[in-house]
This record gives sequence, C-alpha cells and structure tokens, in this order.
Amino acid sequence: MNMLGVAELIDRVKKEDRLSLTEVESKILLSAYGIPVVEEAVVTSEDEAVSRSREMGFPVVLKGHGARLTHKTERGLVKVNLRSVSEIRRAYRQIKASAAEDWEGCLIQPLVEGKREFVAGMFRDAQFGPTVMFGLGGIFTEALDDVAFRIAPLFDAQADALLDEIKSSKLLGDFRGEKVADRAQLRQVLLGLSRLGMEHPEIREVDINPLIVMPDGRVKAVDALVVFEENGAKPVEIGKREEEIEKRAQEIRQALDVAVNAKSVAVVGATRPREYGYPGMFGCMRNYGYAGRLYPVNPKLSDIDGIKAYPNLTALPEPVDLVIVAVPAPFVPDVLRECIATGNKTIHIFTSGFKETGEEAGIRLQEEMKKIALEGGLRVIGPNCMGFYVPKTRLLTWTTAPKESGSVAFVSQSGGNTQDFTNYAARNYGIQFSKAFSYGNALTLDSTDFLDYLAHDDETKIITMYLEGVKDGRRFLKLVSEINRQKPVIIYKGGLSETGALAVSSHTGALAGGEKIWQAFFRQTGAVLVESLEEMADVTLAFHHLGKTRGRKTTVLGFGGGAGVSVADNCAKTGLALPTFSPGLINELRKLIPPAGAMIRNPIDAAVAFVNFNIMGDVLQLLGKTDEIDNIIVSVPLDWLFNEEKGGGYIEKVALYLAGEGRKRAGGKPMVAVWRQYEPRQEIQRWVPVLKNIFLSAGIPVYEGVPRAVNALAKLTAYDAFQAHHNS
Amino acid sequence: MNMLGVAELIDRVKKEDRLSLTEVESKILLSAYGIPVVEEAVVTSEDEAVSRSREMGFPVVLKGHGARLTHKTERGLVKVNLRSVSEIRRAYRQIKASAAEDWEGCLIQPLVEGKREFVAGMFRDAQFGPTVMFGLGGIFTEALDDVAFRIAPLFDAQADALLDEIKSSKLLGDFRGEKVADRAQLRQVLLGLSRLGMEHPEIREVDINPLIVMPDGRVKAVDALVVFEENGAKPVEIGKREEEIEKRAQEIRQALDVAVNAKSVAVVGATRPREYGYPGMFGCMRNYGYAGRLYPVNPKLSDIDGIKAYPNLTALPEPVDLVIVAVPAPFVPDVLRECIATGNKTIHIFTSGFKETGEEAGIRLQEEMKKIALEGGLRVIGPNCMGFYVPKTRLLTWTTAPKESGSVAFVSQSGGNTQDFTNYAARNYGIQFSKAFSYGNALTLDSTDFLDYLAHDDETKIITMYLEGVKDGRRFLKLVSEINRQKPVIIYKGGLSETGALAVSSHTGALAGGEKIWQAFFRQTGAVLVESLEEMADVTLAFHHLGKTRGRKTTVLGFGGGAGVSVADNCAKTGLALPTFSPGLINELRKLIPPAGAMIRNPIDAAVAFVNFNIMGDVLQLLGKTDEIDNIIVSVPLDWLFNEEKGGGYIEKVALYLAGEGRKRAGGKPMVAVWRQYEPRQEIQRWVPVLKNIFLSAGIPVYEGVPRAVNALAKLTAYDAFQAHHNS
Repeated sequence: MNMLGVAELIDRVKKEDRLSLTEVESKILLSAYGIPVVEEAVVTSEDEAVSRSREMGFPVVLKGHGARLTHKTERGLVKVNLRSVSEIRRAYRQIKASAAEDWEGCLIQPLVEGKREFVAGMFRDAQFGPTVMFGLGGIFTEALDDVAFRIAPLFDAQADALLDEIKSSKLLGDFRGEKVADRAQLRQVLLGLSRLGMEHPEIREVDINPLIVMPDGRVKAVDALVVFEENGAKPVEIGKREEEIEKRAQEIRQALDVAVNAKSVAVVGATRPREYGYPGMFGCMRNYGYAGRLYPVNPKLSDIDGIKAYPNLTALPEPVDLVIVAVPAPFVPDVLRECIATGNKTIHIFTSGFKETGEEAGIRLQEEMKKIALEGGLRVIGPNCMGFYVPKTRLLTWTTAPKESGSVAFVSQSGGNTQDFTNYAARNYGIQFSKAFSYGNALTLDSTDFLDYLAHDDETKIITMYLEGVKDGRRFLKLVSEINRQKPVIIYKGGLSETGALAVSSHTGALAGGEKIWQAFFRQTGAVLVESLEEMADVTLAFHHLGKTRGRKTTVLGFGGGAGVSVADNCAKTGLALPTFSPGLINELRKLIPPAGAMIRNPIDAAVAFVNFNIMGDVLQLLGKTDEIDNIIVSVPLDWLFNEEKGGGYIEKVALYLAGEGRKRAGGKPMVAVWRQYEPRQEIQRWVPVLKNIFLSAGIPVYEGVPRAVNALAKLTAYDAFQAHHNS
Repeated sequence: MNMLGVAELIDRVKKEDRLSLTEVESKILLSAYGIPVVEEAVVTSEDEAVSRSREMGFPVVLKGHGARLTHKTERGLVKVNLRSVSEIRRAYRQIKASAAEDWEGCLIQPLVEGKREFVAGMFRDAQFGPTVMFGLGGIFTEALDDVAFRIAPLFDAQADALLDEIKSSKLLGDFRGEKVADRAQLRQVLLGLSRLGMEHPEIREVDINPLIVMPDGRVKAVDALVVFEENGAKPVEIGKREEEIEKRAQEIRQALDVAVNAKSVAVVGATRPREYGYPGMFGCMRNYGYAGRLYPVNPKLSDIDGIKAYPNLTALPEPVDLVIVAVPAPFVPDVLRECIATGNKTIHIFTSGFKETGEEAGIRLQEEMKKIALEGGLRVIGPNCMGFYVPKTRLLTWTTAPKESGSVAFVSQSGGNTQDFTNYAARNYGIQFSKAFSYGNALTLDSTDFLDYLAHDDETKIITMYLEGVKDGRRFLKLVSEINRQKPVIIYKGGLSETGALAVSSHTGALAGGEKIWQAFFRQTGAVLVESLEEMADVTLAFHHLGKTRGRKTTVLGFGGGAGVSVADNCAKTGLALPTFSPGLINELRKLIPPAGAMIRNPIDAAVAFVNFNIMGDVLQLLGKTDEIDNIIVSVPLDWLFNEEKGGGYIEKVALYLAGEGRKRAGGKPMVAVWRQYEPRQEIQRWVPVLKNIFLSAGIPVYEGVPRAVNALAKLTAYDAFQAHHNS
C-alpha cells in the first residue's frame, strides 16, 4: 500500500465520521510511514483463518476486527498463542460470538515473541505541536513511567538520543540471550511517527503498544491505534509559508529597533514623580536620563516638573517611536484606539489587571485589546509587564538599572525578574546588558519576537531568558535551535514542576507544558537550563568570560580536606568530570609540592601553594600542560589567607598572582576562581569585593564556594559538547 | 520443619565445606523464617515425578537438584510450564542427562503464575551489617535498578515503608485484573529476611528472585539462594552485650567531659606563635583565652612568651586533662607511649600524614598508633583533625571561633568543615555552639562516641554533623534513631555520590557506603540530610527558632509575579505544600487586599500589604487563624522598599512591624522571613544586617531568597512529621 492508500484511509474515516482507525487500518498507515508492523490478515471464515495461519506458521494470535471494536482484551476478543487448527477454530467462534453485531471479521497475526516490550507514539502538545514518545512498554508502562519525548520533526541523531534517554535503554542491547535491537528499525519507527505527525495535522494521536523487540533484534509494531482530532485538522502552523513568517519577523525587528533607539516617547498616564516610592513611568524614564523627546500625556496636568504635558496622543506634535501606557486597565482599549488614530504603532503597556488575573473581566478586556491591536496593526509589548531596558539609549521603563552597556541580553515574561536579574548580575558579577525586554502577557509580541530581534542584534552575544510558557512553541524551538549555535541561549524556565505549572497559568495566562516536554526542548535545542536568577547569573558569567572549553575534565586546586569530598559530590551531581590523575602526573606534582599536609590527588589539597607562589606557578604550569585536565578551578579560603599578613593584604596578593602570572603559567587553559569566607569578621569580608574585582577585571569568573563554580563550568562544557556534536 | 532443622542445615553446609545452600535447602531455611515459598518436592524417579505433579496439579516446573548445580537455566536444567505426563517424563530425562554426574534428583514445583515479579534479599553492608533489600524483579531487575534498602532489624512500619519506596510499588495494588498483593505476607518476607540476617552472621547473602505476587495477591518465593561467609561467621557485633557497650560509653562520656572542661592542657610540639599565619596549637589555645593550666612541651624551648615550657610529658608537674599532640607524624607513636607512661589518657592528635594519605607508610604508622592506644587504654581524638571547640571553657584547638556559647553542637570528620561551619553559622545567623568536635581518622574515638556524649549533654539541643563514613554503622544507626527523637540530628553526608565516595576513602580512610544504603539510614532514623555547610546552617536556624510545626501547608506573602512561580517550583521540589486557597479564604483576603496589582492566590502577591501595615496585620491575622495554612513565609524585597523613604529606613520599619505586631497578629503560627536584594547599591545593602538582626533577635528565621527558606522549612516539617509518626 502506498501513500495514495493513506489518503484513501483518511478519507474513509472522515466519510464514516469516525474518530479513530481500526487496528488494521492503523497498521496500514504506520506501514506506509516505514514503521515495521506485524504481518496480519483479516479473515471472514474459519477455513480462511486456518489456511492463513498455516501460511504464517503457528503459533498465531486471533483478534476481533471491526470499526466499532474497542477494548478488545477486556471484551475477550484477543486470543493469543493458538497452536493448532482446533484452537484456532474454537477461538474464531468465541470471538465472533463475543463481538456480536460489531463483528466484521477476525484479524490473524503470527505470535510475535520477545521479552522486550516498548511503547512509541505521537501526540500534539499544546505548545510544541507534534511530539514523538518512546518508552518502556508492557505491563509496566504506567507503573514505571519510563518514557521520553522529542518534538517533531526528528532527525537521526535525535531519534538515537531518544532511544538512549529512557532508563530501560539497556534492554535495547544484548539482553538475556536476545540480540541487540535493530537500531535502524527503531529509528524508522520514531522518524515515521515524526513524519506522520508533521504531514497529518488531522491526526491527534498515535499509540504503538506494544512495540516488540524480537529475540533476533527485529522490531515489530504489534498493536496500534490512530486517533483523529474531534474538530478536524488543527490550524497547520507547520504549513505556514516561511516567507510570511520572515516578512512579519522583519517588520517586528524594524519596529523593535525603532523602539529600542526611540528618539521620541510618549507616556500616557504620566504622573508627577513622588520623591520616594515608585516614581511612575514618566519618572522612571526621566530619572534614568532618557535623552530623546519625552512627552507626558495626562489631561489633568499642564506640565510635569517643567516638561509640557499633553491631554492626549492627538495633541502631540508628532507620532512617537514608542508609546508607554500606564493608565488603569479599563482605559487601555481606548488608548489603543487613539494610537491607531494617531499613527502610533509601537506600544508598551505597563498596566496590569488582564488575563493574568484569571478573572473574567480581565480576560475579556485583554481579548478586546487583542482585537483592536490586530485590526490596527499595533505592536504591543505587554500588558502587565515592565518593558524596556536599553542602557545605550538611556531607555528604562522601571525604577533603577545600571547605566553601562554590555553584550548580554535578557528577555523575560516576568517584570520583577527583569529588574532583579539585570541588577543582580551587575551587582554580583559586573555583567552588563545590551537590552532587556519584559513582555508580560504577550498580547501581540511574544518571546519569539524578542529572540529573533536579539539574534540579529550585533551588540548581543549571549541571550538569557526567564520563561513560563510560549505561544508558538514550534517557532520558539526552531529559533532557539538556530540562535543557540551562534549565541548561547540560557533559559530559566519557571513552572517546570506541576505545582509550579499551576502558578504559571495564574501568572501570565500562558499554558505551561509538562516537565518532560520541556526536557525534550532543552535536549533538542542545546539551550542551557537554569533554575534560578542567581544560577542564571553564575552560568552567564562563565559563558561571558571563558569562551570555548575543551572538555569536562576539571581539577580543583585548594585546601581543606572536607572541601575535597564535597567537590567530588558536586562534580558527580552536575556531570563535570573530576578525573583521577595518572601516576605520572601525580609524580610530577609530588616533585613540586612538599608532602606535609598536602594531598596530591584531584582535588589537590595544598596550602603550601597558596603560601609560596613559585610552587603555585609550577603547579599551574603543569596543570596547564597536561592533557588529563581541561579546566582549572582555584579555591581561595579567605579566612586562612587573611592571617598571613597584618590587615589581610595577603588575600589581594594571592588574587593578583592568580589573575596575572598564575593564569599566564596555566597557558590559557580555562580558569575559574572561587572564594570562601566563613568567619564573622568585617575585616576579612571587606576583601571580598577587592578579590572579586581583581578576578573579574582579568576575565576570570569568580564564585562564592566551589558548588556554584562547578555548576557553571558544567553547564558551559555541556553546551560546548553539544555544539561540537551538532555542528560536526 | 522447625528451627532445629535450620541448625542442622547450617551444620551440614559447614561439614560439607560448601559456601551456599541448594535451592531446596534455601527455601527450607526461608520457610523456617516465615517466608512463603513455593510448594516443592525432590523426586528421584520419573514415576515419582509424575505422581507428585498429579498431586500438585498441572502445569508444573521441573528443575535439576544437587549441591553442585548452579546456573541451572543456562545448563538447560529448568523446564517450565509442563502440562502433561509425557512432557514431564521427557523433561525429567533431559534434565538428568544434562546434569550428568552433578544430578542428585529433580525438584518439582507447581508453576506459580503472576505478572508481578519482585526480588527480595539480605546482605551485609560493610558499615551497617545485615541489610534487607526489596525491588522490582523479573527480567528488568538490572535494567531498571528499582530497589530500596532497610538496615536490619526491621519492624512492621519500616517493612511497609520499604515496600512503598520503590517506584514500581504501584504493582502491589490492584493491577491489570490481579488483586492487591498480600501485605502481611510481603511484610513476613522482609521481616523474615531481617531476622535471618540478625540471627545468622555466618550467612552473607540471601537472594529471593523471583518473589512472585500471584493473581489472587498471595506471595511466593519461587527461587532462592543462600550464600555463606567464606571465612565463617563475621564478628558478631549484634551479639555484643549491651552492658559492655554501655560501660565503654560511660567511660568515654566521662573522659570527654573531663577534656571538654579541662583544667589542664599540655601541647606537645608547642611552638612560638607567629604574629601572622597559622599560630600553632599553643597559639590557638592561648589566643582564644584558655583559662586553665596550659603547658607547652618542646625540648628546644625554655618558655613560650613567658610561659614555662617542658622538655617532655614526664617533666610536667601533673598528668593533664588533655594532651594535644602537634609533632610530625613519625614522632607521634613515641608521644603516645609517653602518654601511657605518664598516666595521660585523653589525647587529641592534630598531626596528619597517616591513613588518610592512602600511602603505605602512613597506614602502617596509624596501625602502630592504634595498637599502642588500645593496649594503653588511651582515648584518642584524631589523628588528622582539628579537635575541640568549647566556648564555655575557652577551649579551642583551631585559629578562630566566636566566644558565645549556645545550644547547637557540631561533630565533624573534617577539620576544615568544623572551623568553616561554626564560623559561617555564627556569621550568617548568629547561631551559637555548645561544643564542636573534629575527629579526623577516628583512631579510637569515632562519631558514635561524640554523638553519645552530646546526647547526654544538657547544653546541647540540636546536633549537627559532617560525616563521611562510620566505623560501627549499627551503633551509629541505633544512636541516631534514639537521639533524633529528643534532639534533632542534622547530617551533612559527604561522599554520597560515587565519585564523592572515592574522594572520601582518600580523605579519612573510612569506607563510605553506597548512596542507597545511606538513603535507608536517613529514612530509618529520621535524621535530617543536608548537602552543604550552608544548607546545614539554614536548616539549623529553622530548627533552632521555630520549635514544633503543625504541618507542611505553607503560604508565601510577598510581591513580584515571577517570584510566585519559582515559589511553587521550590515547594514542589522540596515537598513543602503550597495549597490552593479555598474560595472562602480567597474571599476573606479579597476583603482586606485592594485588587489593583495584587494576586489573591498562594503565593499572595500584594505590594500594598508592605506599604500599609494595617493591611499586612489583617492579612497575617487571617492567615494565622485559618486551618488551611500551617506556616507563613514573608518575602521582603529590599530594593523596592528602599525607595519608600529617604535613606531606606522604611526597610527597618517593615522588619520591625513583622517581627513585632505582625507576628503577634499571626497568632504564633510559625513564621519565616525572607529578604531579597538585587541592586548594586551599597546604600540598600547596608540594611541587610539591620533587617537580619531584627528578625533573628525576635526568633524569626531569616533567609536570603525564598528557596532557602522553603528548603529549611520543608526539612523541619518533614522532621516533625517523622517524629509524630514514629512516636505515635
């Protein structure tokens, strides 16, 4: 049966107004997509059943066949392991009787034997669309929940990764006398499901259960079910023309570029800034030093602190590059209408009280705004969001932010996180931003639009995101996959847990996907997943300063035995390698480090290296040269070093040595610094900023405590490994 | 067959110099321990096989029987599903032929059918002794590794917990038409294995595989293997007389009490303290202000800074309460001999370079010391350790520590961690210590000895530990179980990961157990597991201030939407409950909180409550009263509050309100405070210590960021739930 057959099948289902294919039909469809299915035949007489079973060879399986037959096992319509003509005849009669008026025939198959049962399938995720599933099958499917996903379309390497991801993937190897599973066939199953999902939006779900790996390694789909969408095909985003998408993207890029470099901004709902407390949107813009033409709009004021105010947008002397809306929620639709009337196209709505409330009034208001915006061709950032941070053009729509411009961008659904993260990254690590966007309820502009803009923004080298849900998951996946090859995309995904997911839907009204689907997203795109703003800053710092790493093999040079054990635990947890040194390397180290109190292992525990810089330098040179190590973490305990000299100046000396000569002697191998400080003494703590500044100025990432350093380095090396693998 | 039969069986094995029981013998043994085994009989003729199978009913299983028969399946000695006399005869002949001279008969059993296969077993863990295992069986055992453990002896509730712990425990319920598994029988299996392990130290391992749950729910051990220790019984710690243990414990408690309150201390290897850098052991003691009689011992010095020095211990005017040894490793054995000669019994050895090096010279030196110590009845803390911290008696054998005395004790294998943790807990949270011990290589005194001492120490209310391995796991388990009911035991276990475990064995030479065994330890004792010193401080703070909690249901009152989503994720991760409010409670809250910009959900996002204390008070009162909530976390964003008033004094007002009136209105419900601060502005940061001090002085735990608060509270409520469950 060829592809024409598939079209016929689907037509037939539509005509008969069914929502699913029969088992036979399902397997015809799968077979057309290259999925190996069990040999089978529909028979309508006992004699035919006998003769077909002779052709197939005993034992066989006999099942009821008919468009209305479901729950076959429960209805006694499945008879397995039939070994003789008499058994077949008996089974045939029993099935026919049990199926009664639903009976249209019997389905006969050879019995597929094999201990290894899997499930495979396709379904449509609300955010990501067609998604392929693979997992452990048989009676344990539900009990063990050992399944994994990939978002379609899949290619070979992703199919392989999906096969390897489940815990029971060991079963695919040589297993208890049964041969290695046929990889090519397994791949065909997954790629076939992927293709089917992409090509047939009217198919909601495909379920292959069991997918049996036979003792000789061959793979067979033994039972299958294909279910259709109740309301016919879903809107086919897949089919949307690339040019159309690109045309819209180009327009939005231009619009955002105009907004980001806005020469004129109107603040609708501008108020006189209070001296303390939240200064209002006009105050935010003015306080940060916006240098363009700033127009407060408020019918009740003639001016704000000497700047002329306007009663409405119509009264403005010009259409502006950006309109900021900060009026109460019920007035927002009218402002949007006025924007259309006055030719103001790009609008940031700060106001909240819409869909995110989960209440009817707010939801309806947002729907009204959406209609206005779409009809009027408005580009809306928000509502319920903080908006823009562009240090270069002094554009800031929240209270405070650093003034320096840098190469990291941040895109966030949450406004609070935008302000917090940009400030935190600056405060803790001196990270500087090119742009930050907070887009809240994403009325017309969503994460994908900002991502696309930043992909084309030359100033931006690293993209960080706080994300709850996405509206167009497929475009998001595609964009992140592409961008991540050039510019690392680091994502803090809120609502990964189920409880979390609940709070997400209440927060911005976006539908958050299940944790396993998001796992698939991260595995497919290679985007870097972090779990807090603090971790995002840690990881961004490593990406910012270290560039490409060569691998995961890392050593820690420090002192204190207990720290050593926790280092090993941390590496094990994050996937960073802490290799055992070769005897040769140990010997070399031994020559440099006197034995007393030192541990010549990995981690290296050698106080003496911190007291004697010649030793430190020699050790770093050795570690820089050896192929056994890709990265060096140096752990500096301030409490101990403080006592080396009056006032603690020795801390600075160590930092300066490591950041200068020490690093040079390590020969450019990626180096990360760690400081630890425990004593409650102000005179030690005051050295912390000094030390951090020395390392950061030298481009060496520096963290409090080994765990954060290990985690950041682990994520950087994993990213590099993904890129090397996927770009090779 | 009764217990006499068991003794006979074991005798027979010894006489025949075997290392394992046959399948039949194994099941006789298990049966004697109340474990339900499959009915079976050994037959030695075809006719007998036929007649026994008729009695049992078809189908049956036939296996080869004989003391030398192993790998039966591979040798073709297992024939299952025999359904007729002719099949039995054929199978009998085949087995006899295949087994050849090893054949002693055939074992016949009814075929036990059931989809649900488990494994159960007993083995001897190097640290914890007899341990019971339960897990998913069948062909997936190795592939899925779904097993869990409990250290023997088990009681009913622990057996139940073990059954529930595996991922596939769902299989024990109603499953695909098969009935709920017989709990009583399953418990019998686990308790039987536990008893067997406790009573027969000569048995190394018991393996029941498969343990089948039949369709009617009954449980049968179908195959079993019992393996003996190669060198006969292991030393039976279990049999050690309780009085003997208690006698030694009492002596050690007294000795430690004398050391802790030492009126005289000698420092062997005392040096003149350097002005900067490590001051040496004598310097440490003097600098901290030790008030007793301090004797420096060094043959090369006549005095140290005016304090008379002695050439050796013999020259001292008295035996001292504590000898501190800080001479190079090779000289330590001689010092120990001198201690014996001079009647000095309690010794802290600071020196390192012994077993922890993993090198032969060090290992041999430590063995020599052990022999001397045991023969001379010495009580040794160390070697390779930091020793003592007792603020009350000004006893400190490391560089710096706070002088205030409190109610938290710390016991640590690692010296670095001891100094770091006590200082960190003091600096960050004002936690004060009763005693801290660092015991390093544990030559004679191990963690259990310090634990036992602290259990009896009235000053100590909470015990914290850093632990790598233990020498007497069984005593440790027993002690922690008992102590933890009165005084929470919080343990940072180093080397839980495999890589970590490697570093542990290199660090102090103790054998660290596998992660799953330690999981069993924590589940059995209810001790609180933490994963870093910082987390230990967080958790200790919650235990210290909050007392008993009523449950896990927690609300977070704060502001900023993004924070809300991460709160839910954090609660989901740690097991703290963040319940959805009832419509009634939402209505009540709505009456108090104006709608604009506020989210009346859990978490509650209401900036207005932080600006208007009346609202805050009313909300807290409502939350204090409702049964829907057990605990309240208040999250205070300093950056926002700073702007409310010139100079940021509003931050202090909020803290003072919450710690005073606010807390009162919450009616004594456990309250935890959180601060968040992101902006890089010194003028905001300077309020952090002010705010922390206000909360801590009021006995309210305060953390940076919601995740740490959630985690600490989750561990406290889990502890309380365990205590309620186990003391009920």
